[in-house]
Amino acid sequence: MTPNPGPRERGPRSPNPVIVTLTSDFGDTDPFVGIVKGVILSINRQAQLVDLTHSIPKHDVLEAGLALEAAIPYFPPSSVHLAVVDPGVGSARRGLVVSARRHYFVAPDNGLLTFLFNGADWEAVKLENPAYRLLVVSSSFQGRDLFAPAAAHLSLGVPIHQFGPAVTDPVRLAWPAAARKGDSVVGEVIHVDHFGNLITNIQRELLTGLGENLVVEVAGVAVEGIASYFQDRPSGQPGAIVGSIERLEIFVSEGSAAAHFKAGKGTRVRVRGSGFGVRGS
Amino acid sequence: MTPNPGPRERGPRSPNPVIVTLTSDFGDTDPFVGIVKGVILSINRQAQLVDLTHSIPKHDVLEAGLALEAAIPYFPPSSVHLAVVDPGVGSARRGLVVSARRHYFVAPDNGLLTFLFNGADWEAVKLENPAYRLLVVSSSFQGRDLFAPAAAHLSLGVPIHQFGPAVTDPVRLAWPAAARKGDSVVGEVIHVDHFGNLITNIQRELLTGLGENLVVEVAGVAVEGIASYFQDRPSGQPGAIVGSIERLEIFVSEGSAAAHFKAGKGTRVRVRGSGFGVRGS
Amino acid sequence: MTPNPGPRERGPRSPNPVIVTLTSDFGDTDPFVGIVKGVILSINRQAQLVDLTHSIPKHDVLEAGLALEAAIPYFPPSSVHLAVVDPGVGSARRGLVVSARRHYFVAPDNGLLTFLFNGADWEAVKLENPAYRLLVVSSSFQGRDLFAPAAAHLSLGVPIHQFGPAVTDPVRLAWPAAARKGDSVVGEVIHVDHFGNLITNIQRELLTGLGENLVVEVAGVAVEGIASYFQDRPSGQPGAIVGSIERLEIFVSEGSAAAHFKAGKGTRVRVRGSGFGVRGS
Repeated sequence: MTPNPGPRERGPRSPNPVIVTLTSDFGDTDPFVGIVKGVILSINRQAQLVDLTHSIPKHDVLEAGLALEAAIPYFPPSSVHLAVVDPGVGSARRGLVVSARRHYFVAPDNGLLTFLFNGADWEAVKLENPAYRLLVVSSSFQGRDLFAPAAAHLSLGVPIHQFGPAVTDPVRLAWPAAARKGDSVVGEVIHVDHFGNLITNIQRELLTGLGENLVVEVAGVAVEGIASYFQDRPSGQPGAIVGSIERLEIFVSEGSAAAHFKAGKGTRVRVRGSGFGVRGS
Repeated sequence: MTPNPGPRERGPRSPNPVIVTLTSDFGDTDPFVGIVKGVILSINRQAQLVDLTHSIPKHDVLEAGLALEAAIPYFPPSSVHLAVVDPGVGSARRGLVVSARRHYFVAPDNGLLTFLFNGADWEAVKLENPAYRLLVVSSSFQGRDLFAPAAAHLSLGVPIHQFGPAVTDPVRLAWPAAARKGDSVVGEVIHVDHFGNLITNIQRELLTGLGENLVVEVAGVAVEGIASYFQDRPSGQPGAIVGSIERLEIFVSEGSAAAHFKAGKGTRVRVRGSGFGVRGS
Repeated sequence: MTPNPGPRERGPRSPNPVIVTLTSDFGDTDPFVGIVKGVILSINRQAQLVDLTHSIPKHDVLEAGLALEAAIPYFPPSSVHLAVVDPGVGSARRGLVVSARRHYFVAPDNGLLTFLFNGADWEAVKLENPAYRLLVVSSSFQGRDLFAPAAAHLSLGVPIHQFGPAVTDPVRLAWPAAARKGDSVVGEVIHVDHFGNLITNIQRELLTGLGENLVVEVAGVAVEGIASYFQDRPSGQPGAIVGSIERLEIFVSEGSAAAHFKAGKGTRVRVRGSGFGVRGS
């Protein structure tokens, strides 16, 4: 490993321990996540580690970005976010260190951080400096050998330009876009949560101007009105709500919308003003 | 968020970081738990976070209470326990802050904390003071917006009466009661643990006076004697034991009693003195 | 519980908080792991807790050892590793406190720590001193009552000989051995990881001298060559790699080798120099 950089090189940080969050598709059956934590704590024993989720579907970089996007507003500035969903591990794909939204990010350059690159406020470098990695870098577990050490050094205050040269063309992958079509908004399900709620790519602002009494169509069934909360619908009945990450969600009160509608990622969702068409479920 | 209360307002706390435990039905596929932790650490960076379990069956408030009841004796006094199993999120159901057994609790008022309210030693208030919540409170993720901030402020030493007015009629829900019936005790399975052990509502003290050589009947099969430990029975054979939370449990040595007996929550269990009746399995 | 030992009795430790890792087959549906953490923090509030995995297959002590063996090189010296996979809980099986490889270990004496005892550099004692356990020790949850307190006291610097008398004959269980047979190495799958990769008992050094252009046979199918990284093979195609713990692994690029080969623990694997025999898959 590497000696810590001198104080001159560090950015201003609070005297509090720095939070390092972890997001991956590593699951919980192996010690992968614990090993990554061992590496981080070996470099910065004061790092405060918080798991976001390690149950990202294997290799699904967009889901990892969605989890991270939902979480970062609830962490203090200068937190470091390590995200490893990395089907290209060991190949020529780059690693990135990114500063954006007053937070820091370490991830492979495979589209995972696309949500950051849609804003103006970001700076990225290629993770290249051998001083900030383990001495031996494997080709199959770079979360351990490459990304975890970088996150740990970031949490010690190493400025991002120390990690490597600027990257101006990071890989971007996007969710399928929801779009206004005449009097409707058409989108799709991008995530099914633990409760079976169907999270869509339709963000709150897309719904303005559609009128009141919205009708949400999912899997050929119309769900009338936007609920204020889940039990606003009788037990077992479906509803739609603008959820906790400001996206339209379809739920079943005290049940699972995914099971009820036999719906999942990719299921088409349409929202329109009511007054005509399909009758409610 | 809110400025910390002045030192005058704080209760006496140890100089050690305060432990905040977390219990929920949030599962591990979403960043829900990580987000709750981000909120707590944004308010009290010194809080020491410990997960009890986030795999409570969805909306099962009694199972959450059972987990909490088993755990709190093993945590130091003044620990804060945040428990969110909340099918009524966003509705008019109250939030509670409770002081009991020298610990603190934050939970929705839906029966989850019933086990505390059966004792004499508790004090509850309604979670109402807007100073101790996030600025925007959603209707679908109040674990994040309402309960986590309250737990964090509690961990900083805010006295419970600061959170809102006293509550003297919290919601109580109870496990079905086990009862002595003549020479028997009749109860039922209230939890199946990770190993397939069947945890019953029959507590140790109910068994006194039944005589020795007890016979436990479950799903029509008699299990003879109370084992001293699991391998006290041959591999694959069932047994009964007074388990680690002082409740009668039915197990299968190196196997799963739930699978063996095709039993689960609600399965009836009877304990009687031996000497007559059904022969052992 | 017990008063902390005086400073005289402590071994030299760094001023940093000591890391205590946790490995078990406790799963995540019960508060077992959280309770163990409560016990540790009640004794040493400064302990830094890191989960390795709690999803070890029930009672599978060798898998627990494999997880631990993979993890410890990535933790700082003097870390304490608590591992509880304990089918014999409550029986006469011993508990162990072990010093090896500059780390400390607490586990039942059932073969879990075999990987340590194959080296020369270890010292073990029987966990016997009642000063380092809870006042009441149950027969079914000694991870809580016996092993967690010992790990906590170790993390405070209690020397291992304080815990009990020396043990020179710890239980050893071994993975089935891989062996050189003529021009081949024959071994088997000992673990299937979260990604469906088949981890074998064939360590890197066994492959030297087999020549280049190795062919790996698994479940009757030949996989040609050793890949440099996973995407070195086309999506959906199998490959072999020397993985992150220096063992031969069979993978499917962006897929699951376990599903592809319908293979699992115990599946036979043969490695030979190429040039004749079975054609590649």
